[in-house]
Formats: sequence, C-alpha cells, structure tokens
Amino acid sequence: MKPCYRDTMDPNIILGLAKRRGFFFPSFEIYGGMAGLYDYGPLGSTMKTNIESLWRNNYVMREGMSEIFSPIISPEDVFRASGHLSEFTDFSVQCQKCNQAFRADHLLEEVEDNPDAMSQDELQEAMVKHGIKCPSCKGGLSEPVSVNLMFKTMVGPIGGRDGYMRPETAQAMFFNFHLLYKFNREKLPFGIVQLGKGFRNEISPRQSITRVREFNMMEAEVFFDPSNKVWPGFDEVSSKTLRLLPDGADEQDITLRDAVDKGIIANEPLAYFMHLTQHILTSAGLDSKKLRFRQHLKTEMAHYAEDCWDCEAMTGYGWLELVGIADRGCYDLQSHIDESGAELTAFIRFPEPIEMEATIIVPNLSALGPLFKGKAGAIATKLSEMPCDGLDTAIPIVLDMDGEEVSIPPECFTISQEKKKVSGKRIVPHVIEPSYGLDRIFYTVMDHNYKEDGEYVTLGLPVTIAPIKFGVFPLMSKDGLDDMASDIDKKLRQKGLLTYYDGSGTIGRRYARMDEAGTPFCITVDYETKEDGCVTIRDRDTKDQKRVKMDDLERIAISLADSSLAFEAIG
Amino acid sequence: MKPCYRDTMDPNIILGLAKRRGFFFPSFEIYGGMAGLYDYGPLGSTMKTNIESLWRNNYVMREGMSEIFSPIISPEDVFRASGHLSEFTDFSVQCQKCNQAFRADHLLEEVEDNPDAMSQDELQEAMVKHGIKCPSCKGGLSEPVSVNLMFKTMVGPIGGRDGYMRPETAQAMFFNFHLLYKFNREKLPFGIVQLGKGFRNEISPRQSITRVREFNMMEAEVFFDPSNKVWPGFDEVSSKTLRLLPDGADEQDITLRDAVDKGIIANEPLAYFMHLTQHILTSAGLDSKKLRFRQHLKTEMAHYAEDCWDCEAMTGYGWLELVGIADRGCYDLQSHIDESGAELTAFIRFPEPIEMEATIIVPNLSALGPLFKGKAGAIATKLSEMPCDGLDTAIPIVLDMDGEEVSIPPECFTISQEKKKVSGKRIVPHVIEPSYGLDRIFYTVMDHNYKEDGEYVTLGLPVTIAPIKFGVFPLMSKDGLDDMASDIDKKLRQKGLLTYYDGSGTIGRRYARMDEAGTPFCITVDYETKEDGCVTIRDRDTKDQKRVKMDDLERIAISLADSSLAFEAIG
Repeated sequence: MKPCYRDTMDPNIILGLAKRRGFFFPSFEIYGGMAGLYDYGPLGSTMKTNIESLWRNNYVMREGMSEIFSPIISPEDVFRASGHLSEFTDFSVQCQKCNQAFRADHLLEEVEDNPDAMSQDELQEAMVKHGIKCPSCKGGLSEPVSVNLMFKTMVGPIGGRDGYMRPETAQAMFFNFHLLYKFNREKLPFGIVQLGKGFRNEISPRQSITRVREFNMMEAEVFFDPSNKVWPGFDEVSSKTLRLLPDGADEQDITLRDAVDKGIIANEPLAYFMHLTQHILTSAGLDSKKLRFRQHLKTEMAHYAEDCWDCEAMTGYGWLELVGIADRGCYDLQSHIDESGAELTAFIRFPEPIEMEATIIVPNLSALGPLFKGKAGAIATKLSEMPCDGLDTAIPIVLDMDGEEVSIPPECFTISQEKKKVSGKRIVPHVIEPSYGLDRIFYTVMDHNYKEDGEYVTLGLPVTIAPIKFGVFPLMSKDGLDDMASDIDKKLRQKGLLTYYDGSGTIGRRYARMDEAGTPFCITVDYETKEDGCVTIRDRDTKDQKRVKMDDLERIAISLADSSLAFEAIG
Repeated sequence: MKPCYRDTMDPNIILGLAKRRGFFFPSFEIYGGMAGLYDYGPLGSTMKTNIESLWRNNYVMREGMSEIFSPIISPEDVFRASGHLSEFTDFSVQCQKCNQAFRADHLLEEVEDNPDAMSQDELQEAMVKHGIKCPSCKGGLSEPVSVNLMFKTMVGPIGGRDGYMRPETAQAMFFNFHLLYKFNREKLPFGIVQLGKGFRNEISPRQSITRVREFNMMEAEVFFDPSNKVWPGFDEVSSKTLRLLPDGADEQDITLRDAVDKGIIANEPLAYFMHLTQHILTSAGLDSKKLRFRQHLKTEMAHYAEDCWDCEAMTGYGWLELVGIADRGCYDLQSHIDESGAELTAFIRFPEPIEMEATIIVPNLSALGPLFKGKAGAIATKLSEMPCDGLDTAIPIVLDMDGEEVSIPPECFTISQEKKKVSGKRIVPHVIEPSYGLDRIFYTVMDHNYKEDGEYVTLGLPVTIAPIKFGVFPLMSKDGLDDMASDIDKKLRQKGLLTYYDGSGTIGRRYARMDEAGTPFCITVDYETKEDGCVTIRDRDTKDQKRVKMDDLERIAISLADSSLAFEAIG
C-alpha cells in the first residue's frame, strides 16, 4: 500500500490564513522579526489551550497521571547527565563572505539521500564533491563544525553560574523521581506529565511553527518495573488497528494485539500509548488516513532504546513527526544516578519475603576499640551497614567518617554468611516516553481541516478544538435585536463557552468570517425571535439551520459544545 | 485603622507542607539546587492551572479580552524601547574574599528605612557608615555596581544575535498592537491578556516562590481612547468597597464611586480592575481582611504613569505585592513607535465628519517637471501626502525616494489652506495594565488557608482552586467495595473532576491526608452501600457527612465542584 501524499495544503495558504485571522504569525515584526520565533494570536492561543486540555483529559484525567511544572533554566549537571551537553548538536557551515550560518545537511538535501545521518567528514566530502556554495551570496563555505543547540545563559548577574534553557521538558520528571515516586505512594507503574516550552537554538529555522527555536511540548514519562511492563486498559483497545511502518517491513494496518504478539511493537504499554496518541490526534481533528507510525531504524535509534516509534502526519511540508513514543529502558534514571549519586530507584516487594544468603561485615570491637577509641562505635555501625560484595578481606577498608578518611585494618572485621528474610529489592525503573510536539500538531490541525470552495474558506475544526464555539448575531443592530443577542452572548460566556458577538455586515459575510475561523455554530436573533421566542442555530459544515427556543438554548449550546449532542439531533 | 498583621503563618510551616505534599519545592535538589528556581509538584501544578482558569474566566470569558501567547526570547530592540535595557537593574556588591554577590539594599534593610530607594552613592555611603561586611564570611565588600537583571543569550549558535529572556509578558501586547487592533475590528476599548513566564536574574533570591528568577505572570493590557476612558460594568460595581492606602492619606474603606469622585483613584476603569482583582483574589481563597490596595508614592511612580496601585496581602513574609494595576498613559505604545517607526495607533471616528481647515502642500508641476523628469509625478504625490505642520517654505524639503535622498527646492511647492471633511483622527491609545504575580498569589492562597488543630493540618482551599475535588475510598479494599469505589472514581474523572482514590490505612488517616491536601470532599463506599445503594460524602470544613444515592452522585458531585450546590443543601 502506498502512503497518501494527496490533498496536502500549500503551506503559504495556511500561513496566510493563520496571520489574517490571528492563529499565529512571525514574532517581532515591527523590529524586522527574529527567525524561528512565532506568536499565537487570539484564536491560536485559545486553540492551543484547547489542544492542551484535550491532552490533559486523556493523560491526567483518564490515565491518572500527575502533572508537574518545572523551571526552563537548568544547571549544566542536568544536561551532562542527559547527554545534551555532548550530543544535542548539528553541523554548521558559515559563509566566508556574508557570514550567514547554515545547517550543512540542509544544503545537501537535494543532492544526497540521507544527509542528516552523515558524519562531519562525510558532510565535508559531499560539500566539496557537489561544489556547495552559500545559497544567499554564492560565497565559499567553511568546513562543517559541530555546534551545541542549547541556549546558554548566566544565572546570577555577578559571579554567576552557567545555565541552559531546557531543550525538552522531560528531564525534570527524571531528576525529581525520588520525590515523584513518594507522591505516588511508592507504587509502579505510574506516569508523570509536563506541558511547557522547550528551546533549540536552530542554525537556520524554517517551515514556520514546525521547526522553531522556542516550541511547546506535552510529554509523559511512565515508569515501570522492567519485569512487569503492563498498563491497565491495554486489553480494552488491543483489537484496534494502527497503520505501522516497521523498520525493514512494509507499511501495514495491524491490530495492537498482533503487533505485540509478532514482536513488531516491543511491549503492550508502548502499543497502548501509540493507540492513545492516535485517539488524541484524531480527536483534535487530524485525518487518520494521513497518519502513520514509523519505527526508528536500527541505525537511527539510541543505543539504549528498546523500541521507538514516531507518529507522522502528511502535511504541506511532507511527512512531519508529531509525536515520539519510545521505550527508553532505564537509561534516563541511571544517567542521573551516575551523575548525581542520588537514589532514583523503586522498591519492588516480593509476593512473599524470600530467605536469602547475605554476606555481611562483622566488626571486631575488641580490635576497633583500642585503635579508634570514642569513634569505634560509629565505625562499627558504618561497617555493618556497608555493602560487601566482592570485598577483599586482606586489605584495609577506607571509610568516610564525616568528611575524614579513616583506614580500617583487616584485623578489625570479618566477613560472614548469614541467612535473612528479604521482602523485596530496589530497581531502576524503565521508562516509556510519549512526547508530543504541540506546535506541529497545531499546524497539522489547520492543514488537515482547511477547505476551499472557490474563494470561500472553511476551517473544519472539531468542536472541542475550535477557539470560538458560537458566533452570536443580531440580524440587525437595532430594534432590540442587539440587546437580545448580547444577552445570549453573555449567558453562554458565563457557562464557559467562548463566543464571538458580531453585529456588522451582512449575515452572509458574518457566517463567512466564522467559517474561516473554524467556529462550528452560529446563533442568529431575528425579527421572528420577538414573536416566537426562537433563534436560529446554523451548522458550519452542513450549513443546515434549526430554530430552537431561547429557553432551551443554554442547554443545547452546552451539549453541542461538549459533543454530547449532534446538530442533526436538535429536536 | 491599623492594618492587620495578625494570624500570619511562619513560612517554614508552609514550605514544609508544600514539599511534603508536592505543592512546590526547590528545583534540582539532587544537583545541590539552583537558587531562585522552584518546581510545582502534582498538587501544585493542578492548583496553579486552577488559578489560571479562574483568572481566564474573569478576564477572557467575562470581560471579553483576547489572549495571546508569545516567545520568551526577544531581541534587544524590544527592551531598548521598553526601558528594561537601561532601567531593569539592581545594585550589587560582591565579597572580595568569598566572591558571593548580594543586593546592596538587602544588606542595609535592618539599619536604613528605605534602602531600595537609595542611589548608588547613598548606598555606598551607608555601607561604609554602618561597616557592612559579607554576611557569609565577614569579608570586605566591593562598592555597589548597577547590574542589569535580564537573562541574556545568543540567538543562532553561530554568528548569532543578542537575545534576552523577557522580564514580563507585557511587551508583546504592545509591539503587536497593530495586529491586535485589527483582530479586534479596530474598536476601542479592548483588552489583551497573556499568561506565561517572566525572568529576573536576581542577585540573591530569597523568600521561596515569592521572589524567584523564573516566575509566572498573568497580565492584561487594556487599550483606551484617552478622551473616553470608560469600561462597561463599572456602574454595576461602583458601590462596592475596597480597602485603600492612598499616597499621603490614611488607610480607608471606600466605595469605587467615591474613590473616583474624590480623585483618589484616577479613573473608572482603574477602579474597576482593582475591584476585579479583589474579586479574583477572594475567589481564589484569599482573606479580604488581609488585602489592601496601596497607591504608589509620587517618588516611586514612573514619570509617565497617571496612577498606580499595588494589591498587597499580609503573609508570613509581611505585606507582599501580588498585583499591580497602573494607568500607564500612552508611554508603552509611544516608546515602541519611537523605537521602531511602526504605526501603533488607533483611528477615532468623530460622531459626524468635521470640516477642518487643513494646511496642504501644493506641488508646482511646472517647476518639478524640468528638474526631476520621470520622477516628478512620484515626488508630487509624496509632497501632497506629507504632513506640513510648521513647515518652513523658505528652505528645501528633503524626501526619501526609495532610499535616495532628494532635495526639493522651495520654488517647486506652495503652502495652501484648504477646507476638508475629516471623519476622525489617529491617536496613540492609553493603556491600563493589571499585572498579576501568579506564584505570589499561589503562596498567599496556602498562607491564608492553612489551619492547624494541634498536629492536625487542614488546607481550607476553595473548591474551584483545590487540586483534588474528591477523595474516593472503599471502607475496606475487599468484598467488592474496592471495585465500586474504583467505578465511582473513574466516572467522576470522566466528568472532568480530579479525584484521588485511596484504599489503604484507616479512614481517619485517609481523611487526614485529603484535608492536608485541601480536598473539599471525600466519598466513602461501605458495607451498607451494597444494601441501600448509598455512599457517604464528607465535608472537609465541617466534617459533616451525608448519605447520597449512587444514582445521584454524579450530578451532586458536579454541582458541588462548580459551587452551584452547597454541602449543607444536599437533600
């Protein structure tokens, strides 16, 4: 089966609508702009909040995960542990004439198959071979150099310390694990989510809000006992189908159950979160026929990852990665354990306590006493508590006693085997990470829902996502119709439904404005309203109209807005 | 009347609860922390979102303002215009022995009355006079130097451009004015809001989340025709009372109407937004007896501000500024006009077109033609369109023709008086800015609602703000009680109500956990439930319990959560 490249939208059309109607637009226009930075305008901000709410309803309300909200500025240690300090890089070339910088792989896109997988040497070789020049001024280019893409700053204006703007929201969910585990009453599995900004100092940003320097993420980290990787609810959805593009196999529609049983998807929770992703994206109005899950190639996948899938959408920019869903093993927690020495572990209780042979250190007090006097007791305690795997009884043990190094000679202790009841063990949990790029989802929502009929533009947003739920119009702004419409407008807003009151221009022109803004329903007060107490509700997609009693309007509007009532079903 | 300094909470008690229960805690603990940066944990994140929703319900839903969402990283021009580049500073001193930096005024707080108002010289003099040493190591201190408090970074990793992390969310609402005015159909007044992070590179952060380097703001900018500063709804609230501390007068309780009529508050909209602030803060659970509005002193107020009030709350840290509400005149828009040359103005239509004497330039084509040949037409057009107030007809006019400077000698034009119909005028709108510090409001919510009865802690949060709305308990985790409770838990979550399922420990212990977390209601399934189909709902504040039918539970829970039903009124 061929993937569907049809019906993609020219990005310029989407960008035109986005700016005209205040969905999003380039930032700092009056100062000449700043590449890779965008504003969400009034419609866009609200739609962004609606997408976030949809996501929270699924991850927090339905799946029971907890949310945290952490700083953007972070110390260097965090990114030494995460690997961003050494690995979050791109290769840059700079024009020796006009000084502009470019991503080396971008300049080779038209002449090489996979330039973003090339090494520094391969890039240099290809640049020379193809005679690549500066795309702006045709000047000569420097050799590619690796540059780190984190924004750096100084924390504390005087005598400060290096700080970085986080490149993802994930790390706080790892380095706070010891606290989060406690808040979750020390049980596995559990999930933590964070929504917020991430930053990437792109060399040459492009493609509007799909590749920006400051972006919005929605990430979940779900922690598992590696020997028991299950998530409640999998059975309920196991017969659902996903379109997969596995590494080394053809694109296929397959059920979650089969994909796990055949070893295509590594485990049930991973498959579950892929399905949840599909559910959230289609609820946000994405076209399921333009979605697929692509497995990372062996060469592309991080060495520690057990499995990794990108949910991609076909857009006017081509296939766009919207969500990454990865089983990252214990990599992240282990890295922070190694870097910080903190105990980021979970305790797994055995069904029954197990009797185990344990090796212990038995302090010899009659030797310790004369040697260490008053300190002997503290030293004995410390000896008996320390781990003794692989201890060499022939050489002294060096203890840290309140900062002072103390050497304990072999005659002061013996090693003994002992049976003891052990109720469980400490493990480093595995993590499955669904990571959503909010701006790219936002862009795709507009791309997949844009419809043109001649010059007439309709944005067919789902009701949950649409920024404005109801246009409210008086047929004429006089004869009390305006007061009645204002009153309806105010009442719906009090119920938490965002409305747009419009009293100017023809009704046709007002409908057109709302259709372009993606508003699903319009309510009109006309002269008949004064007689029969009814108003007209009009449906964006079918253009059908129904008369409803004003007394029923609030109830009907609430039900339309939460999709518990279909327009056709209005009595 | 004396302000109320009573009943303030020891901050250490609040911080203990905040960390123990996951409201907030210092960030990066496993890496030794980073001063002035805090995480919101699971309870805190949700409570923060609830405060934001309450604020949006008022500013966006009720007042009809539009929201935008802009980048944190901004180019230097923005802050040259706003004044932050030159004015957003503190005086720092550094220890010459241990290199630690301190705010000069902080070190003088115990020995001087108003050190934060002192100049560089005055600070230096006072430091010497009082023999101030390093508080950490008693080393000698450097002279105070002025340091800018914006975080700086480089945008573009190679050959980049200076960028700053915004110190407030306000500026985007000014420099995007031309677009926002258009989105609002070119009518005044209108309001724009932004919620998001602001950054301040504090020299020495302190007082937990009330003075941090990365904070959360909720700001509104409301644009007015300066000759018509009114806001709908003022009349409805004009008889409400606020506690004011005006500059140069005693603290007093006074109605909005009187405060405006007596000239204490500069105008009606300013008074209106002060009242709205009081309404939002008390809805969030702040104690109105511990709130006041303090007018900025003449010496403290920016030179351009027409009036400025801080809403302050009494807390364990003393009086804390939570919200600033200022009439900033046309300062902000005018500054960006001056810096960028962009037209950030509004067009005010006269009720009737006015016939005006206008001075116009009449091009003399017979002189222009021979001199400028093919360009004469374009020059004539440009001359007739240019403003001519105070033009000296004896000297040449210099025009910019597509980047080329062209000098037009006096014989090529004459000045003439002409009558013409003018339908309106362009003005630079005035702005009123209510600016809310979310973290400080969050802290004060905890401070004002903390209650201790011996060791028993209750956080008396309002239902709207409480992170968890319902604790859900099976009396015993067996005999099917657990399944029934799980079922209730799931159903309430589907309705968007955050619950906490707890099946372990005594019921008393479970109530205690929920009371400390501020959960207003707990639902218990017991053995009787199986017989009579009823569950117990228990009220946090009165400890009263009611039996309700499971069939009614969902409806009752929704009504309790949106406060449309009081616990006492459950039938």
